[in-house]
Amino acid sequence: MKIALVGVGRIAQAQHVPALQASPHWSLAATVSLGGSVPDVPAYTDFTRFLYENPDVPVVSLCVPPVPRFQYARQALEAGRHVMLEKPPGATLAEVEILASLARRRGLALYATWHSRMAYAVAPAKAWLRDKTVSAVRVVWKEDVRHWHPGQHWVAQPGGMGVFDTGVNALSILTDVLPEPIYLQSAELDVPANWHVPIAARLSFSGNVHAQLDWRQTGPQTWDIEIDTDGGALALRMGGNVLEIGGKAVTGQYSVMGEYPALYARMAQLAARGEVEVDLTPMVHVADAFSLGRRTVIAPFAL
Amino acid sequence: MKIALVGVGRIAQAQHVPALQASPHWSLAATVSLGGSVPDVPAYTDFTRFLYENPDVPVVSLCVPPVPRFQYARQALEAGRHVMLEKPPGATLAEVEILASLARRRGLALYATWHSRMAYAVAPAKAWLRDKTVSAVRVVWKEDVRHWHPGQHWVAQPGGMGVFDTGVNALSILTDVLPEPIYLQSAELDVPANWHVPIAARLSFSGNVHAQLDWRQTGPQTWDIEIDTDGGALALRMGGNVLEIGGKAVTGQYSVMGEYPALYARMAQLAARGEVEVDLTPMVHVADAFSLGRRTVIAPFAL
Repeated sequence: MKIALVGVGRIAQAQHVPALQASPHWSLAATVSLGGSVPDVPAYTDFTRFLYENPDVPVVSLCVPPVPRFQYARQALEAGRHVMLEKPPGATLAEVEILASLARRRGLALYATWHSRMAYAVAPAKAWLRDKTVSAVRVVWKEDVRHWHPGQHWVAQPGGMGVFDTGVNALSILTDVLPEPIYLQSAELDVPANWHVPIAARLSFSGNVHAQLDWRQTGPQTWDIEIDTDGGALALRMGGNVLEIGGKAVTGQYSVMGEYPALYARMAQLAARGEVEVDLTPMVHVADAFSLGRRTVIAPFAL
Repeated sequence: MKIALVGVGRIAQAQHVPALQASPHWSLAATVSLGGSVPDVPAYTDFTRFLYENPDVPVVSLCVPPVPRFQYARQALEAGRHVMLEKPPGATLAEVEILASLARRRGLALYATWHSRMAYAVAPAKAWLRDKTVSAVRVVWKEDVRHWHPGQHWVAQPGGMGVFDTGVNALSILTDVLPEPIYLQSAELDVPANWHVPIAARLSFSGNVHAQLDWRQTGPQTWDIEIDTDGGALALRMGGNVLEIGGKAVTGQYSVMGEYPALYARMAQLAARGEVEVDLTPMVHVADAFSLGRRTVIAPFAL
């Protein structure tokens, strides 16, 4: 099926393009971007012109930043195209609900992707947890923002989400694998004096679930989820790519595809059926943290 | 039908008790509260004991503050009772989703009320707007927090919502009467140095919808929604209780019941059918404002 990639930046070049090129389902028919392009693929800068000149491209994948994403998504759906959204699916919950409702009305696919849910060990962790009772969860998610977002000042601005830009990946895994839903009970947010959003957060959820998110970790990065159950302890490490049960690494049950190839395989199913898959739970927890969180202003932090 | 009132504070005494006593549908069978009670009505202080001793009371109405409300609601649903929730329906979006899902599984009614939607002029305004195209909306919602919440320091704490405690009433009306959904595009939040949440907010939504919320208005209070359409201008004043079309007050189409009598009439229908009515849209816009808002710290404000 023909697909166009909109927004050819860092994540598109590193993940989306290779995944599409290796896929048996997809043919990358065009890119739309003010910046990047892909060799031998027709490159547009104007999205309206792309839609007009390519009525035979039924699917668009949007990798533009959250704030402008809504307009592209709505325009694509109104032009009868199936749409795939990078995470987070929008700048607000309300706009994503509007897109989902529009897609349903028109019988089009809309896929709000959470790439970390496709990490190698997430599906086997979920399967193992299905019949367990969870007694405690510890999430530790610590990255170096200067490494991952060098000079990207938007991450510290309103709407930039701050540490939740990465923390929502942890929440997307957690809300996928836990057998029961959770809700936030309290949150502490550390906001540098020159930022608008938190650089670190400590979240306490129902069910004895605790999360530490921090964007100031130099050296080795930490993406760990540890889950205690009545059937023993499970841990997901390396952002959902390594599974431990009872303290021992488990192999042999991992997903066969990487994150982005798996997302595009799922999108092929959704587009064939015209189905909507929009789970806003990870984003709801972030919005709840912003609503309920106790903010502390800390020393300025230069990006 | 027998009903119990849980949390007998200011709003319960002023609104819920008179509405229940005047209703043909309801018999107030018990109260559960650490503080207030109602003459000639059995008064409990322990909710578990109330549930155990009163299996014949099928409905509970919760007027306790948002943070403890979830535990009462879950316990009531698990004990097979229909539940009515004061606004806002919870401290987080996630917890209300959990309650709604629990109620649906058990075939019980759950009603997340928005009392301002039952104001006298809201239904006729909605009917008039149904076939109009809206070109602009101005919401001005200004109250004196010291008058309405004297000494209630929780309104300024995390989870207290600040000015959105009243602003969500405006949003509940707006999201009910507008023919198309809206989403937040930007928000400016003024936070007093001794508060954790905004005392004033300016919100810009899609569709040229703007809202000014302020909790520092002394003298006359302002609860206005002005809507420009292709069929002329409509205004809702006095918190949805007065309707103007083309600048002239309209009478004769108003709802026949006041806000709380109408809520309890609706709850009687939902309980009879075991239905869930939970529209989180007003609360979603508040969460979006907390997520997307640009905060400015202003001078301290004593309650």
